[in-house]
Amino acid sequence: MYTFNELQIQIEKRIDDLEFSTPPEGLFEPMKYILSIGGKRLRPILVLMAANLFKNDLEKIYLPAIGIEVFHNFTLLHDDVMDNAPIRRNMATVHEKWDSNVAILSGDAMSIKAYQFIVSCENQHLSTVLEVFNQTALEVCEGQQFDMEFEDRTDVRVEEYLNMIRLKTAVLLGGSLKMGAIMADADAKDADALYQFGLNLGMAFQLQDDMLDTFGNEAVFGKKIGGDILCNKKTFLLIKAQELAKGDAKIELERWIGEGEFNPEEKIASVRKIYEDLNVRDLAELQIDRYFNLCQDYLASVKVDEVKKENLSLLVKRLINRSV
Amino acid sequence: MYTFNELQIQIEKRIDDLEFSTPPEGLFEPMKYILSIGGKRLRPILVLMAANLFKNDLEKIYLPAIGIEVFHNFTLLHDDVMDNAPIRRNMATVHEKWDSNVAILSGDAMSIKAYQFIVSCENQHLSTVLEVFNQTALEVCEGQQFDMEFEDRTDVRVEEYLNMIRLKTAVLLGGSLKMGAIMADADAKDADALYQFGLNLGMAFQLQDDMLDTFGNEAVFGKKIGGDILCNKKTFLLIKAQELAKGDAKIELERWIGEGEFNPEEKIASVRKIYEDLNVRDLAELQIDRYFNLCQDYLASVKVDEVKKENLSLLVKRLINRSV
Repeated sequence: MYTFNELQIQIEKRIDDLEFSTPPEGLFEPMKYILSIGGKRLRPILVLMAANLFKNDLEKIYLPAIGIEVFHNFTLLHDDVMDNAPIRRNMATVHEKWDSNVAILSGDAMSIKAYQFIVSCENQHLSTVLEVFNQTALEVCEGQQFDMEFEDRTDVRVEEYLNMIRLKTAVLLGGSLKMGAIMADADAKDADALYQFGLNLGMAFQLQDDMLDTFGNEAVFGKKIGGDILCNKKTFLLIKAQELAKGDAKIELERWIGEGEFNPEEKIASVRKIYEDLNVRDLAELQIDRYFNLCQDYLASVKVDEVKKENLSLLVKRLINRSV
Repeated sequence: MYTFNELQIQIEKRIDDLEFSTPPEGLFEPMKYILSIGGKRLRPILVLMAANLFKNDLEKIYLPAIGIEVFHNFTLLHDDVMDNAPIRRNMATVHEKWDSNVAILSGDAMSIKAYQFIVSCENQHLSTVLEVFNQTALEVCEGQQFDMEFEDRTDVRVEEYLNMIRLKTAVLLGGSLKMGAIMADADAKDADALYQFGLNLGMAFQLQDDMLDTFGNEAVFGKKIGGDILCNKKTFLLIKAQELAKGDAKIELERWIGEGEFNPEEKIASVRKIYEDLNVRDLAELQIDRYFNLCQDYLASVKVDEVKKENLSLLVKRLINRSV
């Protein structure tokens, strides 16, 4: 069995070795750039870990797994254009370093590259893998669309938010595991259980991200805390707080949301206090626990030796305790 | 055998019937919109015509053929964002009607939809069809990248221009025919001959487009003549003229290119006259003839009854004489 770290090293090495040498350079340089600035490589590792439950030799699975990472980076590249974000992983975003036309077009080419890598899977799995991938990829777009629409809405409900993060983030983790399982000849039931494992992992992961953005330790988290509060991002915490707040708390929360000019530190501290007072921090933690528990249930239902599941189980435990 | 018009009617009807009903509407409305504003549907018709050379029942080929049309419209949608074009087929472009974020994201979703339709082809052809499609789709992006790069360059050579239109336009016609042939179990040699037929058809078609933009009849062509001249677009005509012009003609041409303010009618008439004087109009027509002749040679080499080729042959003849 390969550990998370072993797979991560392999993925990094193989991404480094990818050849994007054909002209026009203007199309391929931005791909190399965004792929080189890293990230945890969580999605391709999940593909490989799922496959590794059923198969020892992962050689033919690396390239399709990298295809998922290329797809993920393509979505980040285009999301950054749409969100007008200047920085990603402490580096200039592609549209900042080049321009938005370059970001649009090299993103488009990246999504095709992703398919080229994915279709390198063994022929007998091609149709099933593509069915899962196409469905998942479309859902990721749907999630981004909902996320953008929520910015202009004041009536987003908790279930809508959970559905949005399911689409934007969780389905790709689920899809990665399912594709890995399929490529290793797992039966349909196990492949579906691993999909659900990943889906719930993704939900927990995204809710944790929101929590860290609001309650994390800046020095450990490695980025500014409170960004979501400052821009009134409709996270679980804010939506739930708006739902629960009454009387003075409601007035104060709405005042902070409506305020055009404010002291950032003061807004963050005040809204954070409202969240604590309303117990929405605890409610979010309960949700996260619930998703992690579902993860473990689905993993338990997969019909392979428990010892083989240790790496995935360890990953869940590491994520439960993460502070970055 | 199905005629061009019969296939066009079928394609229109089936595009109309496509269901894009899932929320979020903001993602799917722009797809419906750009697909509804038409075009000749040349690419899916070529898929079907190529298949029809080898097969009578085209039922299973319609959806993959529509996938090619969806892909083509996705590229138009993103190209319009990159070119900041307000109008397409006499209608507002998607980024004008909505905004560029909508255009970027619904374009991304369209490209995935295209794959969903294409992978509906019969399983035994899936891997070969995707290989052709991925390669072609990537080349289309490369063509658009070269096209954008050429805007800022003053040293584009004729061969570079021809390579750009090959990538941006011609390969997708070739790829459409080849995919149609593959889906109808044609042998590799015939599929390749049809690819070359389409490639040369595309080259002739794009060079003709440039000619019509400069020498067409506005009332017949249906859009303003001279747009390429006004923005100094590096077409075959301009590049060749710059290569051939000497003395006064060279000075006058460069003056028109460098002029910031001018009377549009005067610039168009003057540059057109330079093209005529330098015989670049004739040179372009020779090139077009050459590509059409290659088309016919490749079609002749396909090993099916001549009578079956009549529809494709008729299409070439109609394009040779086109004025729109």
